[in-house]
Amino acid sequence: MKIIIKQSVLMEHLNHVIRGISSKNLIPALNGIKFEILEEGIYLYSTDNDIAIQSFIEKENIINIEETGNFVINGRYIYDIVRKLPNELIEIEEVLSSKINISTTNSSFTLNCVDVKEFPNLEIEESKTPIKLSNEMFNEIIHQTSFATSNQESRPVLTGINFKFNKNNLEVIATDSYRLSKKIVKLEEKVKEDINVIIPVKNLVEITRLFSTEKEILEMHVFTNKIIFKMNNLIVLSRLINGNYPDVSKLIPEDFTNIVEVNLEEFYNSIDRAALLTNEADKNTIRFETKNNNAIVSSTIPEIGYVEEIIQIKKEKDEDIKIAFSSKYMIDALKAFENEQIKIYFNGEVKPIILKENDKDDLIQLILPIRTY
Amino acid sequence: MKIIIKQSVLMEHLNHVIRGISSKNLIPALNGIKFEILEEGIYLYSTDNDIAIQSFIEKENIINIEETGNFVINGRYIYDIVRKLPNELIEIEEVLSSKINISTTNSSFTLNCVDVKEFPNLEIEESKTPIKLSNEMFNEIIHQTSFATSNQESRPVLTGINFKFNKNNLEVIATDSYRLSKKIVKLEEKVKEDINVIIPVKNLVEITRLFSTEKEILEMHVFTNKIIFKMNNLIVLSRLINGNYPDVSKLIPEDFTNIVEVNLEEFYNSIDRAALLTNEADKNTIRFETKNNNAIVSSTIPEIGYVEEIIQIKKEKDEDIKIAFSSKYMIDALKAFENEQIKIYFNGEVKPIILKENDKDDLIQLILPIRTY
Repeated sequence: MKIIIKQSVLMEHLNHVIRGISSKNLIPALNGIKFEILEEGIYLYSTDNDIAIQSFIEKENIINIEETGNFVINGRYIYDIVRKLPNELIEIEEVLSSKINISTTNSSFTLNCVDVKEFPNLEIEESKTPIKLSNEMFNEIIHQTSFATSNQESRPVLTGINFKFNKNNLEVIATDSYRLSKKIVKLEEKVKEDINVIIPVKNLVEITRLFSTEKEILEMHVFTNKIIFKMNNLIVLSRLINGNYPDVSKLIPEDFTNIVEVNLEEFYNSIDRAALLTNEADKNTIRFETKNNNAIVSSTIPEIGYVEEIIQIKKEKDEDIKIAFSSKYMIDALKAFENEQIKIYFNGEVKPIILKENDKDDLIQLILPIRTY
Repeated sequence: MKIIIKQSVLMEHLNHVIRGISSKNLIPALNGIKFEILEEGIYLYSTDNDIAIQSFIEKENIINIEETGNFVINGRYIYDIVRKLPNELIEIEEVLSSKINISTTNSSFTLNCVDVKEFPNLEIEESKTPIKLSNEMFNEIIHQTSFATSNQESRPVLTGINFKFNKNNLEVIATDSYRLSKKIVKLEEKVKEDINVIIPVKNLVEITRLFSTEKEILEMHVFTNKIIFKMNNLIVLSRLINGNYPDVSKLIPEDFTNIVEVNLEEFYNSIDRAALLTNEADKNTIRFETKNNNAIVSSTIPEIGYVEEIIQIKKEKDEDIKIAFSSKYMIDALKAFENEQIKIYFNGEVKPIILKENDKDDLIQLILPIRTY
């Protein structure tokens, strides 16, 4: 095994696979990056058994593949070493058995390898009918829903995001049972059969980081117990979460007793300031009360003090509303929107609060109120 | 008590005093900022009993001082509130007894005050003969010496930096007994009598952050058990550390058996890379060996691998040297230099290693070697 490659090229691909390594792993192979050197190029692999990453360096981007072969090397060390080497040519060569030498003009590192046989078989494969989506849209979906997932391992399905494909319709739902985010996306091509999967949120967020750069088409290949995301030379495999995702369709009402339109920035800033006088122990409770064309946002920590914020609103129905909710949940939900104005829909003080950019349903944020009045 | 002030002006001064508050403090007054509103302006104070900060807002920068008075308010809350308010006029007014209202057009915060009597008397005073130094030089001194102090509370004097003033000479020393930094500065004006004080490094680093902006003259007012730093409207008081600083004058030899000149960047990079294969348990040991016009920097973690780096050197004496030292200490020491070339002075493998930019003694870094050969 012997190759010569530019430091910058190798670094670009190590930047991908390093994200598949969990530093806490006790199994040496799972702290390793596998190099598979073939005539057509070099495949780099990493996995923590929850996510797996494959990054392919094409032959054209490699100075020389003198000899093919495989090896597995501690990921954190090879990453830090290559990162600190100057942007010169790097020679990587197998020396003795199970040792790899990494050298430039003035530096020579010799590292012990991990047994290739210990590295898991990743079963990266492609389906014939991948679903296609722009990576921009994918990142938007995750940004607008991921915060609403649960981090309680007691209900595993809620630690994932539910993706439901039906014809050219994609419905994405995340909920921790106190709030819910729902995003609807139109696909360019219809899917052949309905798909309903739950993907761990941790992996989805990692994928948005990996695929964040250029505007490209992202392919999703869905299998029974895994999903594969592919963009150019980069492939990420995520396991799926087993179980049935709760049916939330009846949670979102059709009719409302109060509809209020607010300026997003003004409303966000008032909640953000009022949130200073809330605390976790009190569920970050904030009060919201409309009075004619104004709304009053207020909160208190009795030992510290209290705050009142006034904002202008437009009411679509004449009745006033008095309700309380978590400032944290409201701030998370508001961050998902970009419109200048948003609409808030109420059904009294104990029913879910719905937020939308307009009367369409492409993005819905739902928050359960807190009963205090 | 009632004032009207621009958000941006108040924020600038809160940015100063917030640094004097320790979030871990259990005494409410030490989590507070004291506002002293006088005809001539507003003094803001904070302290954690180790450092104290006073920031003065001149009358000219205040829209209106309607009524004078004093109050103490939780520092973290007032800081976050003012930071999140829009850049408008803020009205601060005493309401009821021991409550303060902070308001803008749409926001109104009412905060409980801390009893003014509980706020410590800071004893901020000025001497008639302050020592003057540019804040740039002060920051350079701290940057070049602070890392060499000890964080072991068992020898309190070593957790400080020793400042010795003698005529127009300032000698600054920091050591943790394994390494030492020494900086000599010429003062514009002679001091009247010798001064020898030990200042806590934590406070000195905090002061460099507070005084880092414009190029200004920094005044130092030295008292028996405290030192006061003054720059424009900002005053910082630090307690002094009691005790005798060790006499280190004999530690730095006059003659050397080997003198080696290296390119700073090249040497730094080779140590930085070789340090990847060192660990704390092994004192981050790195080996350095000269051979004619080259030096070899090497290290190993047996389970992981080993590294060899070659750099070019100029030798002032013909004998070769083989020595080991902590890569961490060497990296810290090298960061203090800016010259393209530096000189390293040796007296065999067990005597201190000295680093200087040239043959002058204005900046000396000393590192004890590690005996391994």
